[in-house]
Amino acid sequence: MVISICQAVVTYVLLLWFVRVTDGMPDPAQRDLLMRQEASRQTGGRVALTAAEQKLDAYLHQLKEKEMSAAQFPPALHYFKAKPHIQKSSIFKLLQKMPKGAALHIHSSSLVSVEWLVKNVTYRPHCYICFTWDNSVRFLFSDRQPFPRWDCFYWQLLETLRAKIGDPKGFDNSLMQHLTLFTEDPDGEYPSQDVVWEKFEKAFIAAAGLITHAPVLKDYFYKGLGELQLDNIMYLELRSGLSRTYELDGTIHNKVWTLKTFQEVTKKFIADHPDFLGARIIISVHRALGVSEVKAAVKEAIQLQKDFPDVVAGFDMVGREDSGRTLWYFREALSLPTELGVTLPYFFHAGETDDEGTDVDQNILDALLFNTTRIGHGYALAHHPLAKELSRKRNVAVELCPISNQVLKLVSDLRNHPAAVLMSEGHPMVISSDDPSLFGTTGLSYDFYEAFVGIGGLKANLGTLKELAVNSIRYSSLPAQLKDTGYAMWQRKWDAFIVDQS
Amino acid sequence: MVISICQAVVTYVLLLWFVRVTDGMPDPAQRDLLMRQEASRQTGGRVALTAAEQKLDAYLHQLKEKEMSAAQFPPALHYFKAKPHIQKSSIFKLLQKMPKGAALHIHSSSLVSVEWLVKNVTYRPHCYICFTWDNSVRFLFSDRQPFPRWDCFYWQLLETLRAKIGDPKGFDNSLMQHLTLFTEDPDGEYPSQDVVWEKFEKAFIAAAGLITHAPVLKDYFYKGLGELQLDNIMYLELRSGLSRTYELDGTIHNKVWTLKTFQEVTKKFIADHPDFLGARIIISVHRALGVSEVKAAVKEAIQLQKDFPDVVAGFDMVGREDSGRTLWYFREALSLPTELGVTLPYFFHAGETDDEGTDVDQNILDALLFNTTRIGHGYALAHHPLAKELSRKRNVAVELCPISNQVLKLVSDLRNHPAAVLMSEGHPMVISSDDPSLFGTTGLSYDFYEAFVGIGGLKANLGTLKELAVNSIRYSSLPAQLKDTGYAMWQRKWDAFIVDQS
Ligand SMILES: [Zn+2]
Ligand SMILES: [Zn+2]
Repeated sequence: MVISICQAVVTYVLLLWFVRVTDGMPDPAQRDLLMRQEASRQTGGRVALTAAEQKLDAYLHQLKEKEMSAAQFPPALHYFKAKPHIQKSSIFKLLQKMPKGAALHIHSSSLVSVEWLVKNVTYRPHCYICFTWDNSVRFLFSDRQPFPRWDCFYWQLLETLRAKIGDPKGFDNSLMQHLTLFTEDPDGEYPSQDVVWEKFEKAFIAAAGLITHAPVLKDYFYKGLGELQLDNIMYLELRSGLSRTYELDGTIHNKVWTLKTFQEVTKKFIADHPDFLGARIIISVHRALGVSEVKAAVKEAIQLQKDFPDVVAGFDMVGREDSGRTLWYFREALSLPTELGVTLPYFFHAGETDDEGTDVDQNILDALLFNTTRIGHGYALAHHPLAKELSRKRNVAVELCPISNQVLKLVSDLRNHPAAVLMSEGHPMVISSDDPSLFGTTGLSYDFYEAFVGIGGLKANLGTLKELAVNSIRYSSLPAQLKDTGYAMWQRKWDAFIVDQS
Repeated sequence: MVISICQAVVTYVLLLWFVRVTDGMPDPAQRDLLMRQEASRQTGGRVALTAAEQKLDAYLHQLKEKEMSAAQFPPALHYFKAKPHIQKSSIFKLLQKMPKGAALHIHSSSLVSVEWLVKNVTYRPHCYICFTWDNSVRFLFSDRQPFPRWDCFYWQLLETLRAKIGDPKGFDNSLMQHLTLFTEDPDGEYPSQDVVWEKFEKAFIAAAGLITHAPVLKDYFYKGLGELQLDNIMYLELRSGLSRTYELDGTIHNKVWTLKTFQEVTKKFIADHPDFLGARIIISVHRALGVSEVKAAVKEAIQLQKDFPDVVAGFDMVGREDSGRTLWYFREALSLPTELGVTLPYFFHAGETDDEGTDVDQNILDALLFNTTRIGHGYALAHHPLAKELSRKRNVAVELCPISNQVLKLVSDLRNHPAAVLMSEGHPMVISSDDPSLFGTTGLSYDFYEAFVGIGGLKANLGTLKELAVNSIRYSSLPAQLKDTGYAMWQRKWDAFIVDQS
């Protein structure tokens, strides 16, 4: 409220100036002031930069001008075509080195690059493969020949199959194709949102048999943290359904096993890398479930959070919003915690849609009504003035995943991403990568590139980057004390980064 | 200011509710209230509908739901591919019949359909044609064989040429191709903004020889008003450079002749169609000129407005912003009127760009600093929070031309048009068509369709349409008394339209 009145007063004063200005030729000094006033509203617009930072900022600005005037402007291209250009970009290389803080929106099934899944995991012993009728694959680790399944009749030992195949490299590439959306011809292969989402869910299912093998999962988590660490990320909040895992002999482990494993692997990783802060889980269930199933899932999440308060951050609903059930549909399930007098923080995906005014589009307001801690995507938020105000006043950050939105065909030229509006207003925001392995990214640098160069445009600056990095700690689910540790850790890395650049 | 504080108070009250709401399951009634509160902010959100209008609104909503769930959603397609779908749409047919008020942003060189230019004008006697080295055409009416020109060496009488050609229909189609951007393969033919703008300017030049022939111009203006009238538009503000015109014998008429002709034709048209309100000119000069030339143009515009106060509405600068000179570059010229103590209303194109933070992107704020009456396009306005506030408080409407922005490759899926933000906030706005003949539209119905169905989404309703139509009179350059006449005229048409639908 105070901010609102202050803003009104500031604007009023500016208007008085403005009226005077329009009496004659606009005074360049006053014009400058208006421009600076507008720039100060953007994400990071009020961040004070040191002399060394200002130097780096000026350099970044030059680089950006150069990239914006090049024949191919990467954010205007589909990411699959932009990727080689981005990899050559000096801005990108800087972003890779930059301490980016935390990754707050990544799904566990697509945490680790497919390269590793194929080149490492599928080469392990006892790995069986099966090709489905709908041109997909399944994997299974087993100490005996697996039984036929409804979707998969004929299982082959990968080792045997590979020995028969003349072109192992080509074969491995074809396996990777099954596990990622990446393709050289995205527009041809994915003519519509329906088609791309179909492939998306196929790839998830294909990866499941590899990842949910208990021994693999341990390495997978470790490798995932490693890839983030390599990209100068120090903390992770991972959305996970906590799938049950299996052993070679068919033994099944429950969700608690998965949580404990995640906890142990994280501890081990921190022991090996003391400058890594940690990782937590946001328990996620699919919006294809019914109300009673979601009720059960909410209850279970409450229990798991009680048992593992350090690991479980909260709860979310996942799956394609446009074709799925709305948050309001699940209202009975989602109000359980309040009814039971307990707290279960929500981190809802909401507004991942192009369709305005539909029931799905309503998810944004409902996420806020259910007191969500952050909003996953919030792609539609800029079109919801009231929800936008509520989100801002309650400090509910949007998790912006630009490459995901582009690959899943919400927007083609990223300069048109509605987050450009949010960024120009300094709306609470963090950058994340959603499903890195599916999109062919690692870490956050690619998404930072698109957000910084494409969505932020020439006016986004080093202050923007700094604020986005700090935001990722500020809006994390960490308790206050750990946040302070995080800030201090990040600041040390940041200072070293700045020294390195000068 | 008062509005600003009121809004803050309203939001605060809502927040109080909100806090209570989050104590338990969100109360459906309060949720409803928030949804209605948000909807009331959109364009037309506070328009009260009669019982008959509510009935039509419900029907429109149904139609929209149907079109949004169809396999091909027209606003998501390039307009050239969407056009046949739109023509079949029941919503479109309704929009054609709807009294839409005024067209406030159309350029004179592309006012009339190319069909008429080719099938009528090029069949007139003494019409010569010439093919240029860069695969364009020139036309010239002349009572003798024209001289070779630097860009065109060999002139042929069209009548003679046509007699030689076996396929007159194919030939006419090829002529039309030169005069419009329309093509079946827009993505293939126009891979970039540069390419599409090049074709754009070629087509302008090709049409010039036809339109600037004095006798043609008279018919052209009349035909242009007729096409608007047929689309239920009752008033026009036409951007025009007031090109000099020529007679068969080579006599040249000056700008005053063009203005007088426009005035006479308009009078004649109103005499023939008493329910047409009128037409005015916004004098436009190209941003490729130098400062001193623009100074001269401003002085001339001041004089012409003094001499023809009923016809001349004001002044604008045209041509592609991204590659052109900025408003600030012309500041000396543009502050001339204030220096001379006279008023010359400005109607600046500004922010027709995807590039944020560049000098060109700055045109929006500068247009406001130069006290512009409306903003042409304002595509970038949503990314300029301060400029947006100024524009709103000063009641400076944005002229939204959705099809133009899509064809000129600022945005592909129109649901991502930044005006969705402006519309959700009820920002002052009118709909226009920019260059109908170049894009293959007539009137405003196509652009209304894209704005209403694509940009507005499911939540835009009959109130939105009503407000957009009324806005076109409210934000016109007409003096208060004529506005009142306009409102009354429009209301009669509107009432008849509603009666017709029920
Ligand atoms: Zn996600
Ligand atoms: Zn225009």
